[in-house]
Amino acid sequence: MPSPLRIGLAGLGTVGAGVVRLLDQNASLIASRAGRPIAVVAVSARDRARERGIDLSRFGWEDDASALPAREDVDVVVELVGGADGPALTLARATLGLGKSLVTANKAMLAHHGLELARLSDRTGALLRFEAAVAGGIPVIKGLREGAAANQLTRVYGILNGTCNYILTRMAREESEFADVLAEAQGAGFAEADPAFDIDGIDAAHKLAVLSALAFGVRPDLGAVSIAGIRPVTLADIRQAEALGYEVRLVGLAERAGEALSQRVAPSLVPARHPLAAIEGALNAVVAEGDHVGRLLFVGAGAGAGPTASAVVADLVGIARGEAGPAFSLPADALVALPPAPAAARAGRFYIRLRVEDRPGVLADLTAALRDSGVSIESLNQPASGADGLALVVMVTHDCAETAVAAAVDRMAALPAVVDPPLLMPILPLEG
Amino acid sequence: MPSPLRIGLAGLGTVGAGVVRLLDQNASLIASRAGRPIAVVAVSARDRARERGIDLSRFGWEDDASALPAREDVDVVVELVGGADGPALTLARATLGLGKSLVTANKAMLAHHGLELARLSDRTGALLRFEAAVAGGIPVIKGLREGAAANQLTRVYGILNGTCNYILTRMAREESEFADVLAEAQGAGFAEADPAFDIDGIDAAHKLAVLSALAFGVRPDLGAVSIAGIRPVTLADIRQAEALGYEVRLVGLAERAGEALSQRVAPSLVPARHPLAAIEGALNAVVAEGDHVGRLLFVGAGAGAGPTASAVVADLVGIARGEAGPAFSLPADALVALPPAPAAARAGRFYIRLRVEDRPGVLADLTAALRDSGVSIESLNQPASGADGLALVVMVTHDCAETAVAAAVDRMAALPAVVDPPLLMPILPLEG
Repeated sequence: MPSPLRIGLAGLGTVGAGVVRLLDQNASLIASRAGRPIAVVAVSARDRARERGIDLSRFGWEDDASALPAREDVDVVVELVGGADGPALTLARATLGLGKSLVTANKAMLAHHGLELARLSDRTGALLRFEAAVAGGIPVIKGLREGAAANQLTRVYGILNGTCNYILTRMAREESEFADVLAEAQGAGFAEADPAFDIDGIDAAHKLAVLSALAFGVRPDLGAVSIAGIRPVTLADIRQAEALGYEVRLVGLAERAGEALSQRVAPSLVPARHPLAAIEGALNAVVAEGDHVGRLLFVGAGAGAGPTASAVVADLVGIARGEAGPAFSLPADALVALPPAPAAARAGRFYIRLRVEDRPGVLADLTAALRDSGVSIESLNQPASGADGLALVVMVTHDCAETAVAAAVDRMAALPAVVDPPLLMPILPLEG
Repeated sequence: MPSPLRIGLAGLGTVGAGVVRLLDQNASLIASRAGRPIAVVAVSARDRARERGIDLSRFGWEDDASALPAREDVDVVVELVGGADGPALTLARATLGLGKSLVTANKAMLAHHGLELARLSDRTGALLRFEAAVAGGIPVIKGLREGAAANQLTRVYGILNGTCNYILTRMAREESEFADVLAEAQGAGFAEADPAFDIDGIDAAHKLAVLSALAFGVRPDLGAVSIAGIRPVTLADIRQAEALGYEVRLVGLAERAGEALSQRVAPSLVPARHPLAAIEGALNAVVAEGDHVGRLLFVGAGAGAGPTASAVVADLVGIARGEAGPAFSLPADALVALPPAPAAARAGRFYIRLRVEDRPGVLADLTAALRDSGVSIESLNQPASGADGLALVVMVTHDCAETAVAAAVDRMAALPAVVDPPLLMPILPLEG
């Protein structure tokens, strides 16, 4: 049997413990598929004594994770510490700088420092791999880097945050409002105590920046992603969307717009017959559209110890087999800094929801705002008013520039009869 | 720029011409992703003069494809000749025997001779790659070999033949019978003039044998696959299935059954809420269920020049990057010959459809046949009789052994009142 690939593992939370368990449970299967055993030799975590259900006594221990790559008995470091900067980044730099390969699930670090780390990887020849950073167990990084490698990709998009999808689909199924489902999800462990990263779309934006780099050969650039979260989505929006033939999903979407790249995370209306409309609960899904392959869809568990560990170990198997190639498919110096697409270049249909005082003349003011912004609408619905004397108004536009509809919404928001901030959601087309 | 990877291409049908076009159109993108250019240098086909819309004058020509691997200017051979034996097999043996890597879309050859070719690949160190052999452009071979490599897989199944799926979904949508849709599909180029390979399930069985080898570490063994096609499926079956909450799909399914492996291709009832029920037209879809990753779903175009060429070139990119590893994930000598699961070990719920003479006593005879075989039923439906005095009887069983339900169907088929051969279809469970 050839010598094992020796792993230094930093971070022993849910995923880290899952990696240890997976390597234990499927050791012989993994060794035969990888061509050599894969063995954790040293670990690092904040608290050595915490009960994790795994025996740590057989591993070396480092109080400081950044000591792992310097160990002579470590070939590859697995970084599961998390956080865009701090100890995770120190560890990543130390590992790649020493010419040892790094496997990470850290989308925040990749979105912020992916270019620097990819350059370091190119320079030292150490691999940087991150299948677990996007869409948990779904092999979508490999799907883009390898499976779709022959294609010019036109769009990449998907449901990239399981917490948001869980909340939106529970709201729909249980007729519940956002705040109630969030509280319930926190109780059940499906949402963090501080849920902002998830529900405000930041986690999905990190993942989208990583997907964009792979798909379009651009530098990962979180600042180029336009981000909106799901807090403003109400049960009424979901019901109105359903009545119009759509489901509401938090969609991260990147697409070429001439010489620019549009990257957007937003709660969106997805046609009921679109495959993303069928993605329920904590599942993730990614669609990649290529010039030769057409539309590819990948679906699976986006989080959890088992699926994420599966993706981490898939990367380790690839390294053990001797795979090669740059982190983002192209050499880091070939990654370009495409400018973000201006909102004027982004077009499509949009959903607008307003809460207005229920009195004569309001609709005339709203439609005047649309006219003055050059936006024409396909439908306008005004469900029965509530007991509070306020009415819901829901509009679907024809194709228009995002700048135009945004201007219309600004005009409407300034009207005295419009009570809450309006909600604007893009509508995903059924076909590419 | 490093030296190009030089390709000898055998077979210039739809897919072969598509590979030439793809390598032309995306040449610079592919070169930067692969780290070196990928260039066709020599080709072989039956008819040199045929108009294909591509300029062959820049390539070397071989009348005999098996001369390609011996050429000094060829590094890798792409085999798109087709056929389990004959010229394709001769070419594959010659290529791998000379230590040159082979990329093939030939599922029939892999299902029949995959073990021999994998052994040859292991011996000479040449790679054997076949992403295009299963599910067209969908990177499901890489998904299993790499993405799910850390998992013990419990089941792999899917819609593996686009022609059958096209026919079944057209029947449902257009209220048409099998023969009419087949004729129309042949006219539109979606079905071959001789459609037997597709509609009798043989093509899907080839692909299932290849998936099983990768997923379960078994030798590809077409003889171990139980095969039924879609010819006996009527519009009435599709309507009855829909009324019961199912869609009819040709499903290829492989799963462990103790120390045996069950591999079956059969028209099957798929629950309306199962992701495979949403797969329409010529799309393909593969589900892989792993012990850590859970359920993964891959969807995309299962055939056509663009998607298949995309998969062929994806393999070439991997070879250009220097990827390594055995054909079926494990060394060929480690692949085991699991016995086929006996039908008695296969259990589940089943759909039974009979056409019977519409007279008193028939139902009593049918239910007696079920009782005598130890099969209990969940439902029995008898839609209104036709003008021919014949009645349709549709039954759904509770969980039972396949041997038991097969015995019951045999008993029923022997009854004088049962007119046509009964149709027995397995019901796919919603969850694994």
